[in-house]
Amino acid sequence: MELTDEAWLRAMLVVEVALARAQADLGRCPRAAVRAIVAVAQAERFDVVRLARDARTAANPVVAFVGTFTELVGAEDPAAADYVHRGSTSQDILDSATMLICRKVFGMIADDLALVARALAVLANRHRNTLQAGRTLGQHAVPITFGLKVAGWLQLVLDALARVRSTMATLPAELGGAAGTLAAYAEYATLDGMSRQGLPLRGVELIAPFAAELGLAEPVFPWHATRTPIADVGATLQFVTGALGKVALDVQTLSRTEIGELSEPTAPGRGASSAMPHKRNPVLATLVVVAARQVPAHALVLAQSMLVEDERSAGAWHAEWQPLREALRLTGGATHTAVELVTGLGVHPDRMLANIRLTGADIVTERLNVALAPILGKVNAKRLLTEATLTAHTTGTDLAEVLRQHDQMAGLLTPAELRDLLDPARYVGAADVLVDRVLARAAEVGIHP
Amino acid sequence: MELTDEAWLRAMLVVEVALARAQADLGRCPRAAVRAIVAVAQAERFDVVRLARDARTAANPVVAFVGTFTELVGAEDPAAADYVHRGSTSQDILDSATMLICRKVFGMIADDLALVARALAVLANRHRNTLQAGRTLGQHAVPITFGLKVAGWLQLVLDALARVRSTMATLPAELGGAAGTLAAYAEYATLDGMSRQGLPLRGVELIAPFAAELGLAEPVFPWHATRTPIADVGATLQFVTGALGKVALDVQTLSRTEIGELSEPTAPGRGASSAMPHKRNPVLATLVVVAARQVPAHALVLAQSMLVEDERSAGAWHAEWQPLREALRLTGGATHTAVELVTGLGVHPDRMLANIRLTGADIVTERLNVALAPILGKVNAKRLLTEATLTAHTTGTDLAEVLRQHDQMAGLLTPAELRDLLDPARYVGAADVLVDRVLARAAEVGIHP
Amino acid sequence: MELTDEAWLRAMLVVEVALARAQADLGRCPRAAVRAIVAVAQAERFDVVRLARDARTAANPVVAFVGTFTELVGAEDPAAADYVHRGSTSQDILDSATMLICRKVFGMIADDLALVARALAVLANRHRNTLQAGRTLGQHAVPITFGLKVAGWLQLVLDALARVRSTMATLPAELGGAAGTLAAYAEYATLDGMSRQGLPLRGVELIAPFAAELGLAEPVFPWHATRTPIADVGATLQFVTGALGKVALDVQTLSRTEIGELSEPTAPGRGASSAMPHKRNPVLATLVVVAARQVPAHALVLAQSMLVEDERSAGAWHAEWQPLREALRLTGGATHTAVELVTGLGVHPDRMLANIRLTGADIVTERLNVALAPILGKVNAKRLLTEATLTAHTTGTDLAEVLRQHDQMAGLLTPAELRDLLDPARYVGAADVLVDRVLARAAEVGIHP
Amino acid sequence: MELTDEAWLRAMLVVEVALARAQADLGRCPRAAVRAIVAVAQAERFDVVRLARDARTAANPVVAFVGTFTELVGAEDPAAADYVHRGSTSQDILDSATMLICRKVFGMIADDLALVARALAVLANRHRNTLQAGRTLGQHAVPITFGLKVAGWLQLVLDALARVRSTMATLPAELGGAAGTLAAYAEYATLDGMSRQGLPLRGVELIAPFAAELGLAEPVFPWHATRTPIADVGATLQFVTGALGKVALDVQTLSRTEIGELSEPTAPGRGASSAMPHKRNPVLATLVVVAARQVPAHALVLAQSMLVEDERSAGAWHAEWQPLREALRLTGGATHTAVELVTGLGVHPDRMLANIRLTGADIVTERLNVALAPILGKVNAKRLLTEATLTAHTTGTDLAEVLRQHDQMAGLLTPAELRDLLDPARYVGAADVLVDRVLARAAEVGIHP
Repeated sequence: MELTDEAWLRAMLVVEVALARAQADLGRCPRAAVRAIVAVAQAERFDVVRLARDARTAANPVVAFVGTFTELVGAEDPAAADYVHRGSTSQDILDSATMLICRKVFGMIADDLALVARALAVLANRHRNTLQAGRTLGQHAVPITFGLKVAGWLQLVLDALARVRSTMATLPAELGGAAGTLAAYAEYATLDGMSRQGLPLRGVELIAPFAAELGLAEPVFPWHATRTPIADVGATLQFVTGALGKVALDVQTLSRTEIGELSEPTAPGRGASSAMPHKRNPVLATLVVVAARQVPAHALVLAQSMLVEDERSAGAWHAEWQPLREALRLTGGATHTAVELVTGLGVHPDRMLANIRLTGADIVTERLNVALAPILGKVNAKRLLTEATLTAHTTGTDLAEVLRQHDQMAGLLTPAELRDLLDPARYVGAADVLVDRVLARAAEVGIHP
Repeated sequence: MELTDEAWLRAMLVVEVALARAQADLGRCPRAAVRAIVAVAQAERFDVVRLARDARTAANPVVAFVGTFTELVGAEDPAAADYVHRGSTSQDILDSATMLICRKVFGMIADDLALVARALAVLANRHRNTLQAGRTLGQHAVPITFGLKVAGWLQLVLDALARVRSTMATLPAELGGAAGTLAAYAEYATLDGMSRQGLPLRGVELIAPFAAELGLAEPVFPWHATRTPIADVGATLQFVTGALGKVALDVQTLSRTEIGELSEPTAPGRGASSAMPHKRNPVLATLVVVAARQVPAHALVLAQSMLVEDERSAGAWHAEWQPLREALRLTGGATHTAVELVTGLGVHPDRMLANIRLTGADIVTERLNVALAPILGKVNAKRLLTEATLTAHTTGTDLAEVLRQHDQMAGLLTPAELRDLLDPARYVGAADVLVDRVLARAAEVGIHP
Repeated sequence: MELTDEAWLRAMLVVEVALARAQADLGRCPRAAVRAIVAVAQAERFDVVRLARDARTAANPVVAFVGTFTELVGAEDPAAADYVHRGSTSQDILDSATMLICRKVFGMIADDLALVARALAVLANRHRNTLQAGRTLGQHAVPITFGLKVAGWLQLVLDALARVRSTMATLPAELGGAAGTLAAYAEYATLDGMSRQGLPLRGVELIAPFAAELGLAEPVFPWHATRTPIADVGATLQFVTGALGKVALDVQTLSRTEIGELSEPTAPGRGASSAMPHKRNPVLATLVVVAARQVPAHALVLAQSMLVEDERSAGAWHAEWQPLREALRLTGGATHTAVELVTGLGVHPDRMLANIRLTGADIVTERLNVALAPILGKVNAKRLLTEATLTAHTTGTDLAEVLRQHDQMAGLLTPAELRDLLDPARYVGAADVLVDRVLARAAEVGIHP
Repeated sequence: MELTDEAWLRAMLVVEVALARAQADLGRCPRAAVRAIVAVAQAERFDVVRLARDARTAANPVVAFVGTFTELVGAEDPAAADYVHRGSTSQDILDSATMLICRKVFGMIADDLALVARALAVLANRHRNTLQAGRTLGQHAVPITFGLKVAGWLQLVLDALARVRSTMATLPAELGGAAGTLAAYAEYATLDGMSRQGLPLRGVELIAPFAAELGLAEPVFPWHATRTPIADVGATLQFVTGALGKVALDVQTLSRTEIGELSEPTAPGRGASSAMPHKRNPVLATLVVVAARQVPAHALVLAQSMLVEDERSAGAWHAEWQPLREALRLTGGATHTAVELVTGLGVHPDRMLANIRLTGADIVTERLNVALAPILGKVNAKRLLTEATLTAHTTGTDLAEVLRQHDQMAGLLTPAELRDLLDPARYVGAADVLVDRVLARAAEVGIHP
């Protein structure tokens, strides 16, 4: 993942080059100066550690970076130095650089989410009839299929993918100058005596070509102190890890020793313990959960970054950088790990079947309730079943047996009818239709099993 | 704001009625039963306090509610009682009721945001040329116009409005049954021997009419454990209070005693202190900031509600209710307050002018820098100005005076040129064009000054 | 739990009475005025709903409350009205009232935590030799005893109890006047021509008797804008729900259908489902987890309330009230529920034993590793066991059997030695000593099994 | 600040050495093995980047670290390799290493907080009579002294220092083995045929010497899954940045251009802007605020780390590391910056005086209210003053003048009495006594002006 200090330095260089090129396109910067700026715009020519240290003096890294960059360009071509960072302000550069990095990481996340979605589509399709216990509040509830469960995961991942793509398309360049008026950009243009088609030069004409150079969206308005893009990025990343976290938490739960219905893909050494040779810890799911536990806290700080005073803030902006970087890193890592997790997921239908049998008739009491309601009345039916299940639990008898011997049940159902009613495989409702609905949604975005 | 326990009770009644009606539409519930259910579906017939207390037993309020509702319907029409909550599960009812309430509150928020936006459009347009100090890190930076500042606010509010409308359109009904298979809905249908066009009855055919009855979106998949709607609602509310919080924080800052550029609309008693008769506290802005400080914490809990295990969770679902209610209440209140704040906002251009004069030539050093760069070279120009401003600050002399007497400045500029350069009104860049860009965006959604 | 608007009203009345009494003790308020104030200080005489509504005007409820209270006292005794809220400010009253409520709720929480601790001490002692699988990352690791697990819970609860008691002892009264100088208190005293022992009257002499009247700690300094007590209350409540949440999460996990080692105390109707008669949901544990998922978000807002400007804040103070109230309510409720959960907890040693046998020899691979290391060398021993467990898992053979037939194991251990090594009951280390260590700590604070 | 990956590696080496030494002290590890382990325990011998990368395989860095360390020791002395990490588990090593780092950073923070406190004591003492406007909700309220404000800051910093010292003293070593039973430690001891005083070897006897070697507190119980120390560290760091954040926010506010009562210490280049030569941004205060905006989010994650299942968690533990590291880094940095900020803080009493005069008689309306109450009655006095201040604001007249000409005031006060009443310097209440109270508290912990 490209989230080092050096990555930011490279992105800032791309932004300064784009600024020079956009000005050159409007005739405000000599091509020779652009060439000199491009020539020097190489991360290797900077001392990243020193820039990071010097950032403290100005509370941002751009001031020192621009100083060094100007010197380097001046050494290459003294006349070009005047065109470095021309008319600009620290926040234009850093915000634009941050958006470049977000776009890149979002692209990687989108690619990985698509892989996760495809693997889940395959699983949902394959296991559309694989019987499994549905669990609510940790207890067996009614039967489901494993395909249904996976379809729910897929639904979430498609939601995440849609949000990532949608946010990615709106990531804007930043261009406003010292207080968002673009005044210095305009001033330089006026100074150069330039004008386009006789119109007064106001600076705004620079926004579109600058954004186009960067491949970022054109902002309606400088967003130095109106932090929609940052809040959006935070909310989107939080959604992604929340979605993947749901999948991972289910994997962890279902791969518990006593449940054993799923297992992580194995690899040499993976999930090893430093002391217990038998251990195969579910480390991939754990890594995903780890991200899901952290990203919401970062997204909170990013959301709070909207609450800023003035044209540029005294702290809120600066408090964005580290949470943003961490949220990108964690989400990128979690998505990448999730691909590995779901593509190699071990599914154990035999254990699913064994587990569903643990609760015998309990898992279909809802169905019994439906079946008996018209015979005994709704209230009586529920009362009878509540008592019968309690008796079954207390005495350790199977509920089916308790029912067979119950006075009120005498003559109500034939043994075949009761057997049918007690078969969990015959009580999975619309599971397969629901799987198809989600697969159809996936197909709409080109994801097929 | 409709966010009491009783409001939820009413919404749950609406949902139960919709469920009966949708089943009746498919021929699965007699019209007479629907009539009885509708007749009894009145909040007044329930003891809200007792329902709230009984909720503890099942860790949700629906079990006790359904019990009482069934009794009441049975008293009205014994045969109808069997059709109450038929095939349903607690979470179908409560989630759908919550979405109904969200839609209603979102509607109110959208209406109020549109009023805020309109008032801001008026202010931005009116003050497009009202000179004001641009401030960064709490210090005068370069001149702006008050219209530009308001345009930034408007941009944020339009972003918020777009998100509220977009989220509102996706709020889905919930229908899945005990573990999301819709099995009991299907079972009742089968039991009734009904079938539509010879197709097997699966339960899914109930989703669309049920959602239509409620006026909510039709879900692709039951979202008992895939909490996209909840996370979206949280993120949207957080965005709204973040956007309004930025406006309010600027109002608080600019209405500080020493700044005095804005003042809240006055009303008898408003902003009074219990001890200081002269006090007119900025209470409207404060109420908005109060919401903006709290809602992100609620949104965090709602985002974390995505991280749940199984078909229904043992805690995460239950932890949603109170944060969601509080976030709706705070955001609804803040938006309503914001209307009052911005429509009556006192703007004091004379104080804006007086304040900008406080820093004399300082506020245009960026412009001086641009002007002197081609004459002295970029580096020399910045050095000269840095020294001159330091001299000015240290000696208490006006920077203009220091420059006039500076050796290096001799003969560079005529007095008229210098006067022009030092005039803040001539250095507001593209402020008015940027105002127009945001007004144009507002016009696209029907909001005009 | 006493956390209604009315409870706050009552607490504010107690504070106003204490203020009058403290001033009377210093001779600054006639006893007759105190009597009138006491006579009127009854919550029933106020319209709580109206006070709540009027609170919006001043952004706090005290201004309207003092107005009404003064009127009521004036109606009783016109001369006494002048002594109502004399010299005071809204925040003195509301902060002190909040501390009264905190102290009361903390007292209830401490009592309940002591009950929880006692029940856990009993369980830890009773089950000191009850064998159970230790689980890490969801997988069987090495054997533990259930007593050890409970001792860990007890350790956490003792930590929580210590924090609650310690914070409770420091909850301070608030007395500072409009900006923390106590000037108005002093001014009234001067005006009355009073002086104590010839010393100048400064207001500070009022702090100690006022705090004593309330039974709160005497503050060194007014804390209007230095919010240590609020941050402490938040951190303490968060700790309590975190501690109980750990217990509840373990109960939820161990009462999963497939594990079944613990079960919640049953009660008629408790844990019922609206559709599935067999369901006994772990609702008590769920209610505790629900609190633990929410309180940290409230504590975050309370911690952020430290970040305030000036002598009194424009929003941070006001943003404290609701999170504080919710955090108290949730923590008080969770603690009360926890008492019920742990005192009636169903423990099933037979299931613990059955589960530990599921993994056969796996659960003692660490021990085998230790035993084989000196024979085979540390590295070889671990390699052999890693391979053997993999073989066992892959082939479905019991690890013990794989080892018995393994070449390298030939002649290394007698069957009896191997049997001993494979007995999980002989590999619980210092579990009982650790139980005793925690019980000894409990005994120090008077908690015995 | 020592918070790199390498710092953790070094700390893990210290822990492994301590473990070997503690075992040697009990006769369970040959001195020669200890010597070999010590000899190899050098960070330089490890490839930190590779260890970080390999950490992903086991979801923790210890497994790979122990593998490499064992190899290195084995190369030095084959017999010693068996004694590396003997009986231990990943979490024992990493938790203990983390506590070592916490203790070191807490020590640095405590030292810096003491320096901050001392500088504040000096300022509070020096400015005990420096008149300043007290501000509430952003508006002038009543007069205070700057010394009083600083005393409030000092009070907070003393609270922070007390918490840091208290938490530091409780940071425990971690020793529990795979599931907290210490079984492997005991097993090795038994294997070696060792016993101390004929007592059975249980592993617990190792805890005290191990903790003593590390200079950490001895834990009552292994805290693998009972995360009191982590929650405490988070809450303490959050408190420190909250306290310093209050100071910094006040500095930012009071150094706004229009207020100008404080200014940051200057240094060449500090607070420079990339475009505006006159800018001296308050970067030190900003850096502190930046930390205060981030640390609560990290503390939240650390508090939530209490909510874990089983003997060791599948994610919560792993989610602690990065927030803990960041919180330590941010708090350490903020405290260090705060020393620089407060020791060189520029205080401008002339601006404080000029600002307080801006509001003329307004700032003493509370006093006028007190003075007029006995003459006009409490209600009449407040009404008169409310009207008079409104008249003054509306007409732009000085309140003093309005009062002099008011009908009801005629003959009530002599000009001298009114002049005295209107003098803000005569209405600072107990400001100096309160300063002394805080200085006395500081003196108790050895901090003097």
